[in-house]
Amino acid sequence: MTLRLALLASALAFATLPAHAAEPQKSKYRSAQEILEASPAQDWRRLDPANTLYLELESGRVIIELAPAFAPEHVGNIRTLAHEGFWNGLSIYRSQDNWVVQFGDPTEEESQRKSMGSAKPKLPAEFERKADDLKFDVLPDSDGWAPQVGFVDGFPAARDPKTGQAWMAHCYATLGAGRDTAADSSNATELYVVIGQSPRQLDRNITVVGRVVKGMELLSVLKRGPEPMGMYADKADYTPIRAIRLASDVPEAERTPLELLRTDSRSFTDATEARRNRRDPWYVRPAGHIDVCNVPLPVRSPKK
Amino acid sequence: MTLRLALLASALAFATLPAHAAEPQKSKYRSAQEILEASPAQDWRRLDPANTLYLELESGRVIIELAPAFAPEHVGNIRTLAHEGFWNGLSIYRSQDNWVVQFGDPTEEESQRKSMGSAKPKLPAEFERKADDLKFDVLPDSDGWAPQVGFVDGFPAARDPKTGQAWMAHCYATLGAGRDTAADSSNATELYVVIGQSPRQLDRNITVVGRVVKGMELLSVLKRGPEPMGMYADKADYTPIRAIRLASDVPEAERTPLELLRTDSRSFTDATEARRNRRDPWYVRPAGHIDVCNVPLPVRSPKK
Repeated sequence: MTLRLALLASALAFATLPAHAAEPQKSKYRSAQEILEASPAQDWRRLDPANTLYLELESGRVIIELAPAFAPEHVGNIRTLAHEGFWNGLSIYRSQDNWVVQFGDPTEEESQRKSMGSAKPKLPAEFERKADDLKFDVLPDSDGWAPQVGFVDGFPAARDPKTGQAWMAHCYATLGAGRDTAADSSNATELYVVIGQSPRQLDRNITVVGRVVKGMELLSVLKRGPEPMGMYADKADYTPIRAIRLASDVPEAERTPLELLRTDSRSFTDATEARRNRRDPWYVRPAGHIDVCNVPLPVRSPKK
Repeated sequence: MTLRLALLASALAFATLPAHAAEPQKSKYRSAQEILEASPAQDWRRLDPANTLYLELESGRVIIELAPAFAPEHVGNIRTLAHEGFWNGLSIYRSQDNWVVQFGDPTEEESQRKSMGSAKPKLPAEFERKADDLKFDVLPDSDGWAPQVGFVDGFPAARDPKTGQAWMAHCYATLGAGRDTAADSSNATELYVVIGQSPRQLDRNITVVGRVVKGMELLSVLKRGPEPMGMYADKADYTPIRAIRLASDVPEAERTPLELLRTDSRSFTDATEARRNRRDPWYVRPAGHIDVCNVPLPVRSPKK
């Protein structure tokens, strides 16, 4: 009964399936894992170091891909802030269950906050953008929050054909820029990462700047702060940030090379379909549907 | 700029809203928090001790409501197992990021596993049930995974008018019974709790037995085990279970009294609408939609 330990194979992991004598009618089904294992090299892309952040914690490295196509001004500031070491020595000061972790400088008094150096003190809201010059890999599945969902350059996204606008979707691992009540009050110093159920109600209400592609398990386990907001009352609960650096500022030998499955690849489409309509032995009833935030975005170390 | 700390007020918490001079056209809007604060006593229900599990960890108490209406056989076994102390001294042995934590007895060799006492060794799959004699509080919002979604006795649920069947939805905090490949291979000793994005593809593929109503933050922070399944390789990573007890087996003075908002109450309907179409000052664009797994299910301590 060793299968006992195989129960609940993850939608997010390349779980090993139990060996099974394939039934004739299922002989053509390939699991997402099998599709990925057989995927050609060109279906994968390398992370661009100029577009990659390393959030260095005592527990390890969290790797973030930035989204300049959606938030050019915020990403510009983030690059400057990282290059100048703004976050080094600051902390993760918020962890709210089923919501977000947040980091930066929590000092309330503006005059006492860490200097933003040569970053811009004021940025526009970048909640959505024109869709017509974006390559949008449409997911055929319905979505309650937006007319259409899919992926742009590997990021979960949505668009509205009527308005011609596109925006990034808030899913697990989404990185956004905290703001006050004014829509244009984010300056990209205070960043949050989604650690729970996709809070899609935030879509088009706040600027999304990227996505954690590796290391979520270092953020998602942080002790929760007190309700309702999860801001730690005790600074001893802060998680220190050793550094946030652009990968391009890191010596090549210290970088973490990663490949991401292209969301416009056949392998991605096929793996998503294999998850939408599972025919592996464990599943009794294929869902016939997948939510944009349930689609795994595979990451791997490059083959040597 | 103290609002800086109010950014990203949680959909799940009774967050304090900043004081604002109400604009005339918004004067009738009440936030979910305001609705809950003004809710009449009869809109709340007490947890039934015979239907409540206390999962006692070193870090505190996790409180679970069982769902006998959907999984009577599994809940029967759980009551027996808890009453006889089956889980006492066992562990949480699995923590997989954005997926589940799981507890019970991970021993692979069946003959060496802890005795189930007088619990039934074999249970039927309880994936769905007849809907026609269930009070179903329908959510008007569309859902990609099921024809209809809503709540039954406070549990997120779905139903299909064509088949006349209803089932529980996998959301954050859902408690289910792990199984092997055979649909009827769960015996309710190995239980999992969802700690990430709602894995709705599991709906009707596994038996859901209840929901964590308080204490998720004690489970969601557990160090993740190694990929792909999150089963800890090192037993030192196990989280010991002091006890799992039925609240009705616990002396009354040691119980945690809780009230849950009735999902068939006006306050619940109104609070959900206030979240579907937010008009508090922070939100620029109301979503016009809410997902069944994004609807908060409020819990409070009874007023003294």
